[in-house]
Amino acid sequence: MERILLTPGPTPLPETVRKAMARKMIHHRGADFAELLHNVAEGIGYVMGTSPEKVLIFTASGTGAMEAAVVNVLSKGDKVIVVNTGNFGARWKQLCEIFGAEVIELKYDWGCQADVKDLEIALRENPECKAVFAQHLETSTGVENDVKKMAKLTSQSDAIFVVDAVSGLGCVEMKMDEWKIDVCIGSSQKGLMAPPGLSFMAFSDRAWERVENSDLPKFYLDAKKYRESIANRQTPFTPAISTFFAINESLEYIKKKTLKKILAKNAVLAQGTRAAIDVLGLELLPKKPCDAITAIKVPEGVDGKALLKKIEETYNVKLAGGQSEYKGKLIRFAHMGDIGREDTLKGIYALEKALQEDKNFRVKELGKATETARKIFKSGDS
Amino acid sequence: MERILLTPGPTPLPETVRKAMARKMIHHRGADFAELLHNVAEGIGYVMGTSPEKVLIFTASGTGAMEAAVVNVLSKGDKVIVVNTGNFGARWKQLCEIFGAEVIELKYDWGCQADVKDLEIALRENPECKAVFAQHLETSTGVENDVKKMAKLTSQSDAIFVVDAVSGLGCVEMKMDEWKIDVCIGSSQKGLMAPPGLSFMAFSDRAWERVENSDLPKFYLDAKKYRESIANRQTPFTPAISTFFAINESLEYIKKKTLKKILAKNAVLAQGTRAAIDVLGLELLPKKPCDAITAIKVPEGVDGKALLKKIEETYNVKLAGGQSEYKGKLIRFAHMGDIGREDTLKGIYALEKALQEDKNFRVKELGKATETARKIFKSGDS
Repeated sequence: MERILLTPGPTPLPETVRKAMARKMIHHRGADFAELLHNVAEGIGYVMGTSPEKVLIFTASGTGAMEAAVVNVLSKGDKVIVVNTGNFGARWKQLCEIFGAEVIELKYDWGCQADVKDLEIALRENPECKAVFAQHLETSTGVENDVKKMAKLTSQSDAIFVVDAVSGLGCVEMKMDEWKIDVCIGSSQKGLMAPPGLSFMAFSDRAWERVENSDLPKFYLDAKKYRESIANRQTPFTPAISTFFAINESLEYIKKKTLKKILAKNAVLAQGTRAAIDVLGLELLPKKPCDAITAIKVPEGVDGKALLKKIEETYNVKLAGGQSEYKGKLIRFAHMGDIGREDTLKGIYALEKALQEDKNFRVKELGKATETARKIFKSGDS
Repeated sequence: MERILLTPGPTPLPETVRKAMARKMIHHRGADFAELLHNVAEGIGYVMGTSPEKVLIFTASGTGAMEAAVVNVLSKGDKVIVVNTGNFGARWKQLCEIFGAEVIELKYDWGCQADVKDLEIALRENPECKAVFAQHLETSTGVENDVKKMAKLTSQSDAIFVVDAVSGLGCVEMKMDEWKIDVCIGSSQKGLMAPPGLSFMAFSDRAWERVENSDLPKFYLDAKKYRESIANRQTPFTPAISTFFAINESLEYIKKKTLKKILAKNAVLAQGTRAAIDVLGLELLPKKPCDAITAIKVPEGVDGKALLKKIEETYNVKLAGGQSEYKGKLIRFAHMGDIGREDTLKGIYALEKALQEDKNFRVKELGKATETARKIFKSGDS
């Protein structure tokens, strides 16, 4: 029996994507890689809502691109606002502080969406603020922040708006240019259905001005080097070529299927999962859950770690647990990547079964949650 | 007709390695990735000549690991010695300077090996020097530096010895622990026969002391985070999982074949190629060439760029050109990765043919260079 991966990155890969990885190696200084790089940048631009010539691609995980954003747009002692709605918001704060910025933190309880009014006040009170950092989707809590509103607000100040869209890209709508986002970050292994190992960043003109004046030391993640290289359809350092083969294929797949249909599919899967969770009498962590990750509270008395282990080992479904302060207290069920109805139903049923076998939890009617989701899937376009 | 890749990274991959990339995705927090990470660290330890628990693995190119070495072992204002024998020596200097070190440069003409006596003098004159940076093989020139002697010398001082073995690993002998190298760096896409995207680093105890006291800002490349994680058989950030599948396979292949046999094979291929170059009346750049890359001077009057283009487009062999000041002036012919006799012979013959067709060069007897190499291969264990 094959394991079903319902984790918020890495996600399952379409077969064509996996097979593309097995292609013979090519050299990164030559016409074939130049074309590949161009196609991939175009695909990423499509998903991000920006033009391909703005896209820089790093051979690094998403955190590498987050660091790249910080060291490229900031200078020593810059005052910044960090919108912290969970584990990855906390990472923005850590990164900014490590690289010498002065951080004003807008911190929210896990599961809460950032309040745009707080940002409005913070920007008004700190007109010298250079940048605002936020998450589009906070992977640790399943919360979606209203980055569209935040971007509009920030665009009226001197600060630039930096968005970690690692979990959002390919899962929920992102219109970087239209929404006036200055820096947008993504990575390969979530909604983009490729293996981990590549991350991306695009800058607005306003952000490039900051890059020009940034005095923080950098080399491997120096955006200017990537911009110079991409003009020649190259990367400054040897890129993860096989992962480029994969993401080129997955972006083709996304373009053919259309982003609109993929987002609609994710939404239906999330809707069905939430309805099932409700039938089981479980509680969601976020008040306004997003359509890419459903974060479920482990019910009182149940050992979260043991529950996930059972679901994995007995029912061959891999779900993610909680991070940081929520270790052992969350079940994170993803709706991103190459996941369909059947996989999601198997995931729900595995959760039902494992809960039923837990002496500290009572499943009233085994299978009912799964059936509830199935009905929603049938009515939706998944 | 398939293109033969005779470039010093990326190199051709064994079929089993390519196919391993197509495996279904797994999650990086779980028993299967833990085992994979452990196996890969063991294989890298075998090739580096160190113990697996010392090996840290980054999702980044070789330059990422070079930067990691600098930001982890140095502190602001540290005095260091950089042994610069080419393009990658110059990169050490750049990296050290960008991150605030004071650099004493031992610079050599391209093609020259570093003189260990210069290092001896520099260490004596600068007892406060914190670290020495060098290349094992200088990929841009095909020169092998005597890192064994340099390490011995440096170990008698207060400085630590940092070696970029990116091009050497799996191509020529490396005994990190025995030779008393403090920091050794490698990456996946050269002698290790895997796709680009992963790089590694191992530290001696002496180097870890420096890491403990380093005050340079870092996050994505913070060695302490990787050490903590690897103790739990994890990586701190999402790793390039498919590339782990590949390198696990290629390290198995290397272990089975034995490193000794692979190094012997490389040596014979290099020997044959050098003999062929001699027959053609061409000149090598390095005085003491290494067995992983043969760097050949483009003969007077011949357009190096056009020559390589012809070899690629007409004869389907990809060779590398010169870098920096040697752009257009070098042909770099690699003997690393999954390259055998026949590929090398095809490469030599392509070079003969392209030169014969060049009106500014005379090939006395077409095929003689290839035949010369063939004879050497027959007598050797390739």
